[in-house]
Amino acid sequence: MDLSSPGPTLGVIGGGQLGRMLAEAATPLGVELVVLDPTPGCPASSIARDQIVADFADSAGTTQLGDRADALTLEIELGDPDALKQTSATTGVSIQPQPETLRTIQDKLVQKQTLTDAGIPVPEFRQIDSKADLDAALAALGPVMLKDRTGGYDGRGNRPVTDTSEVSAAISAIGNNAMAEQLIDFTRELSVIGVKGPETTKLFPVTETIHRDEILRETVTPARTSEQIREQARSVAMDVLAEMDGRGVYGIELFETDDGRVLVNEIAPRPHNSGHWTIEGATYSQFEQHVRAVLGWPLASVDHRGPTVMVNLLGDVETDQRATLHGTTEILNADGAHLHWYGKREARPLRKLGHVTVTADGTGITDPDELLAYARDLRDRTTFNPDPNVS
Amino acid sequence: MDLSSPGPTLGVIGGGQLGRMLAEAATPLGVELVVLDPTPGCPASSIARDQIVADFADSAGTTQLGDRADALTLEIELGDPDALKQTSATTGVSIQPQPETLRTIQDKLVQKQTLTDAGIPVPEFRQIDSKADLDAALAALGPVMLKDRTGGYDGRGNRPVTDTSEVSAAISAIGNNAMAEQLIDFTRELSVIGVKGPETTKLFPVTETIHRDEILRETVTPARTSEQIREQARSVAMDVLAEMDGRGVYGIELFETDDGRVLVNEIAPRPHNSGHWTIEGATYSQFEQHVRAVLGWPLASVDHRGPTVMVNLLGDVETDQRATLHGTTEILNADGAHLHWYGKREARPLRKLGHVTVTADGTGITDPDELLAYARDLRDRTTFNPDPNVS
Repeated sequence: MDLSSPGPTLGVIGGGQLGRMLAEAATPLGVELVVLDPTPGCPASSIARDQIVADFADSAGTTQLGDRADALTLEIELGDPDALKQTSATTGVSIQPQPETLRTIQDKLVQKQTLTDAGIPVPEFRQIDSKADLDAALAALGPVMLKDRTGGYDGRGNRPVTDTSEVSAAISAIGNNAMAEQLIDFTRELSVIGVKGPETTKLFPVTETIHRDEILRETVTPARTSEQIREQARSVAMDVLAEMDGRGVYGIELFETDDGRVLVNEIAPRPHNSGHWTIEGATYSQFEQHVRAVLGWPLASVDHRGPTVMVNLLGDVETDQRATLHGTTEILNADGAHLHWYGKREARPLRKLGHVTVTADGTGITDPDELLAYARDLRDRTTFNPDPNVS
Repeated sequence: MDLSSPGPTLGVIGGGQLGRMLAEAATPLGVELVVLDPTPGCPASSIARDQIVADFADSAGTTQLGDRADALTLEIELGDPDALKQTSATTGVSIQPQPETLRTIQDKLVQKQTLTDAGIPVPEFRQIDSKADLDAALAALGPVMLKDRTGGYDGRGNRPVTDTSEVSAAISAIGNNAMAEQLIDFTRELSVIGVKGPETTKLFPVTETIHRDEILRETVTPARTSEQIREQARSVAMDVLAEMDGRGVYGIELFETDDGRVLVNEIAPRPHNSGHWTIEGATYSQFEQHVRAVLGWPLASVDHRGPTVMVNLLGDVETDQRATLHGTTEILNADGAHLHWYGKREARPLRKLGHVTVTADGTGITDPDELLAYARDLRDRTTFNPDPNVS
């Protein structure tokens, strides 16, 4: 193949931190980004060639994006599959992954049903259209997680329900276009970042994800689990990817249950927070892989360089305020620590504002527990709270 | 220190590939770039926040850049030191390195005299204002390299003169604002990338540079030379940096002579082609170090990850033409190879259009000779010539 300048333009639905890191990875390859995002000055805007300011599912905006792009992809699940199909039909531009894959994933019930139909292990689940459905689910499954079928993320749109006394409040909060999933007794959560390329499908090493309040806090790669569980995780991930239609990176979140099974929690049809470690921890990042895959270029190796830990920098604030990270020097001074700042103007409670990756080769720490402790300590020395006690 | 969004804006004189790679490194740190460059659509323009289209030494453009920036630096030596000093005085913006350092380096005669005065070893040299001066230099030094004192780069403005019969033609070609340097019998050429930070000065491992027709073709890091020579190179580099005024990355090009000495060839007050290997081959790149240094942030570690080879992708064309690299797939398919495309529209003979870095950890090749052969082979499978025989 040939590469010229200007190189191919990648149109991206969404211009958040994933779009920003996609642009960082695309530039060395000669690929330019145009992003569609409703927020002027979105994280990707400063390094993308251009931003189209429009809602993610806006039909005119999607068409405009298609007109400017050589290929389309997404970094958020909120695009409109129909608008994307229309754009592809009108402009002839390839969309990866396929809009139908996006549609399947957007509805958590359809997502889970699709996986079940393919024989892929998932927690038991029920469709919930009414309080009666939820009562029945509780009776059948025991404690469940009630989930809005569409639009939830980072724990929003999710609510645990353990007792029939909580049913009314739960349905009021989540609505009655919902699903219920059996709450799983899990030993740990895992994630596999997979890439579907034009000819091959590859998996990065299995990552361990650590959540609190349903928000990802830290990742440890390789996951601190048995080789047998890792092999199960890879096998499940390959089965999932076989069901997905279209090229690109997928983030596959998994439960490792107390009884030694691996179940699929959720799928993201895009680069994922649990794959940020690949920027420094792997020879090629998930973002470079996504660019390659979407453009139909050959995938790169998924080798990792060694143990790697990522910690998110979340808005540790009570109220919305200007995003200012205090104690940045602590990160800049730490051997083997790499700062990633997303360029968001506003800190909100638990909003993802950046992350820090620490690698074995930079820190000299090869023990994953110690590497995690090192990264947590660094994170804890920083804050978005305007507290004068933090340097 | 604190980090907010939008983060600090770095104003950069020049928007070529060095500015582009500077922007790639600045974004994760929350730093935005505005570049000043006369060529619309210059390599850095697609990912910089903005480009001011003006000549490098344009006074109004420099002032405008200073008005928009929190700190100023350069990626090409063609800025006007007086305009920069004026801008700093007017706007209060810090300029790193110092304009006086730029002035010293811009004139190769002054540069060499400064080094000599500091007791730093350089090839013998003479000021050349006339044919008579050049005749005298030949008589005293033997064969010399005649150099335009200002403005030359990548071999332009340089001409070897071995015999008095060549004097007239050489002066006609180079002019009589020149200097002559004794041609050195060197075993190999070396380079040290140094960083002057707010508190410390650091050196990346010594790199071996391989030139042909005075244009850098390949680098091998660590240099394939003795530990004794490497130690000499580091020592000379530290002495050079002590003479430079202002923070930032410096590229220090050296000769390792046949009789075991290390002499300074030239200094660049900016990230340098011989330091591109640091993007993948070191824990932190020369570009991240430059951003940190110029902003007065702490420097990062200069550790390298292992043997690393870089090959330039030069315009292997006879005439100016649209830049199209044929055979890109060969690079994308090669384990451990990383493509860097500079986004230049036009290929010109021997113009730098991109580079490829190969690392030991991605290829599994730890022998530097083999790694160099691997990289050269990759490069040789690509071409800018529209030759149908190359895939």
